[in-house]
Amino acid sequence: MKAMQQQGPGGPLEWTDAPDPVAGHGEVVVDIVATAVNNADRLQAAGHYPPPLGESPIIGLECSGVIAHVGDGVEGWAVGDEVCALLAGGGYAERVAVPATQLLPVPRGIDLADAAALPEAVCTVWTAIRDVAEPAVEGLALVHGGSGGIGTMAVQLLTARGYRIATTASARHHRMVRMLGAEVAVDYRSEDFVAAVHRATEGRGAELIIDVIGADYLERNLASLALDGTLTVIAAQRGTEAEIDLRWLMQRRITLRAMTLRARPRTGRGGKADVIDEVRREVWPLLEAGTIAPVIGAKLRLTHANEALALMGGDESPGGKIVLVR
Amino acid sequence: MKAMQQQGPGGPLEWTDAPDPVAGHGEVVVDIVATAVNNADRLQAAGHYPPPLGESPIIGLECSGVIAHVGDGVEGWAVGDEVCALLAGGGYAERVAVPATQLLPVPRGIDLADAAALPEAVCTVWTAIRDVAEPAVEGLALVHGGSGGIGTMAVQLLTARGYRIATTASARHHRMVRMLGAEVAVDYRSEDFVAAVHRATEGRGAELIIDVIGADYLERNLASLALDGTLTVIAAQRGTEAEIDLRWLMQRRITLRAMTLRARPRTGRGGKADVIDEVRREVWPLLEAGTIAPVIGAKLRLTHANEALALMGGDESPGGKIVLVR
Repeated sequence: MKAMQQQGPGGPLEWTDAPDPVAGHGEVVVDIVATAVNNADRLQAAGHYPPPLGESPIIGLECSGVIAHVGDGVEGWAVGDEVCALLAGGGYAERVAVPATQLLPVPRGIDLADAAALPEAVCTVWTAIRDVAEPAVEGLALVHGGSGGIGTMAVQLLTARGYRIATTASARHHRMVRMLGAEVAVDYRSEDFVAAVHRATEGRGAELIIDVIGADYLERNLASLALDGTLTVIAAQRGTEAEIDLRWLMQRRITLRAMTLRARPRTGRGGKADVIDEVRREVWPLLEAGTIAPVIGAKLRLTHANEALALMGGDESPGGKIVLVR
Repeated sequence: MKAMQQQGPGGPLEWTDAPDPVAGHGEVVVDIVATAVNNADRLQAAGHYPPPLGESPIIGLECSGVIAHVGDGVEGWAVGDEVCALLAGGGYAERVAVPATQLLPVPRGIDLADAAALPEAVCTVWTAIRDVAEPAVEGLALVHGGSGGIGTMAVQLLTARGYRIATTASARHHRMVRMLGAEVAVDYRSEDFVAAVHRATEGRGAELIIDVIGADYLERNLASLALDGTLTVIAAQRGTEAEIDLRWLMQRRITLRAMTLRARPRTGRGGKADVIDEVRREVWPLLEAGTIAPVIGAKLRLTHANEALALMGGDESPGGKIVLVR
C-alpha cells in the first residue's frame, strides 16, 4: 500500500510504499476513507513525539473506512462494515490494522469521511469528563482552545452535560464557539481569562477546566477554579514543569488531573478498549441524536497532509478538525 | 467558664476565665467531657494558624460531652444528649457553642470521652476517600503517618474499603499499625517508601496515597502512584510550594487532590454539615459494628494541655489520638 511517510525525522511527508498491514489476533484491517489531523501528528512529524513501542511509525491517530479483513478472534464486526477507529498510529495510509476493541460504528446521520474526526476528540474529552460530577446550578466550565478539534468537542459535550461554558479562542473563532454553546468567549491574546471566569461566576470561579496548554497556564488555571473545582490537563502545548502551592489547593479543595489517550494500553484497566466501550454507550447516542456533532473546519486530500499540518499550526487554522480524505 | 487560653501568641495555655458560650440560632451549647489534640492545635498555639474569621479564638477542633442548652431552630437534639462535635475552635474549654449540623451521636459501644477523638479524624479521612473508586484486586493504598490520629483512622477505613495498606511510621509504632490493618510498615527515617510501595505491588505502585507531609514528599508520592492513581494531600507539615512535571502526571494519568476540613463553611456545598451527614450515614455504622475504632494513645487532663501538645510534637508521641479529659 501507499502511505504518507517521511524519509527522515523532520522531513516532509511523501506518498510512498509501505508494508501492507496484516490483521493480527483480535484485529481488523480497515480500508481507510479518511483520517484527521491531531496536534500529536505535528509533534511526531517534527520528531518530538515517537509512537508507543511496537506501534506503526506511520502518523495518524484516527480514521474512518470500511473493514477489508477480519482477523482471528474478532466478534461483532464483518468485512464491509463502515467504521471509525482510534489508532495508535498508521492513519495517514491506505489501510491500517487496528484492534477490534478500538472500532466504533459510524454514527447514524454522520458522513463516513466526517466520522474520521470523531475518535480522538470524543475519547479524549470523554476520559477528561467522565468522572466529573454534574455541575451545580449555574456551574461553569472553562475550555481552553475551544475552537480546536478537542475544544469544539469539549464545548459541546460539557454543554450537553449542563455546564455553562467559557472558552479561550482567537477572536475570529468566537462566533463559532458561541454557536457550539459557549457563553463566554475569551480572546487569549488580549484578555485575562481568570478575570473573565470570575466575572461570569460572581467570583466563584470555574467548576471544571479542560486545559491543553500546561505549565504556562497552570497558575492562572488554579486561580480560576471554584471551591472543589477540577483542572484536567489533557495536553501541554506550552510546557510541563510548573510550580504549585499546595496551600492554595488545600484551601480551595482543588483536584488536578492529567491524562493522555495515546499512552493508554489496548486493554486492561484504563485501556483504550474500556474507553471505546464507554464512548459507544455514553457519547454515540448524543451524536446520533444530533445533540453534538463533529466540527470540521477543512477537508484536504491525504496527499496534502503537509499543507494540513502547516495549516493546523499556523495563524489561519480553521476551527474544529482538519480531515484528510483519500 | 474556664478554658485553656494563652496570654499572648506562643505562650503557654493557662486555665483562665472565658466568656460563657451562648447558643445562637441553630446552635447548641455542649458541656465538654473531653476534647482531643490535633496538629492544628500546635500550630495555632505557636501563632501560625489563626482560627477562621468569626470563630472562637480558643484552641480545640473537636469534643465530646452533653448538650446543656439548645438554641432556636435546632431539631433532633435535646438537653442531656451525649454527643461528639466537630468544632471550628473552642474545644479546650468547659463549654462550647456549636452548630447542631456539626453534632454526631456517640456511637454505640464507644466511651463518651473516647468519642472526642472521632470527629476530626473521621471527617478528614472521609472527605479524602469518599470520591475514590473501589480498589482493584490487590490494590494498595499508602498512608503517610499511619500511627497518628489521622493515620490510624485512614489505615482502618481504607482497610475496611478493601485496600491493602502500606504506611510510613516510626519503627516503634510498626506493631500498632500492623494491628490496624497495615500490611507494609515503612520506617520513614531509614527506608525508601517509593521502593517499598513498588516492591509490595510488583512495580505497579499505590492506587491511592493519603499524605500529610506536603511539598517534601510530593515528588516521591507522585513516583509511588500506580497508573490512574490518586494522591490526596490533607495536610502539609513540611512545605507547600513544590514543582511538578505535568508530563509525568499525564503519562501516569494521575489525580492530585488537596483539601482541608477546617476551612469548610458550616453549610452549603462542601460544607461541614454535608460532611457530618455523610459520616453519620457511612462511617458511624462501621464504628458501631466495631469494624473501626478510635485509637487513643494517651489521656491527660485538659489542664495538662501544654504537656499534651509537647508530647504530640516530640519523638515520644504515642500512637493515635491524645484525648484531654475535663
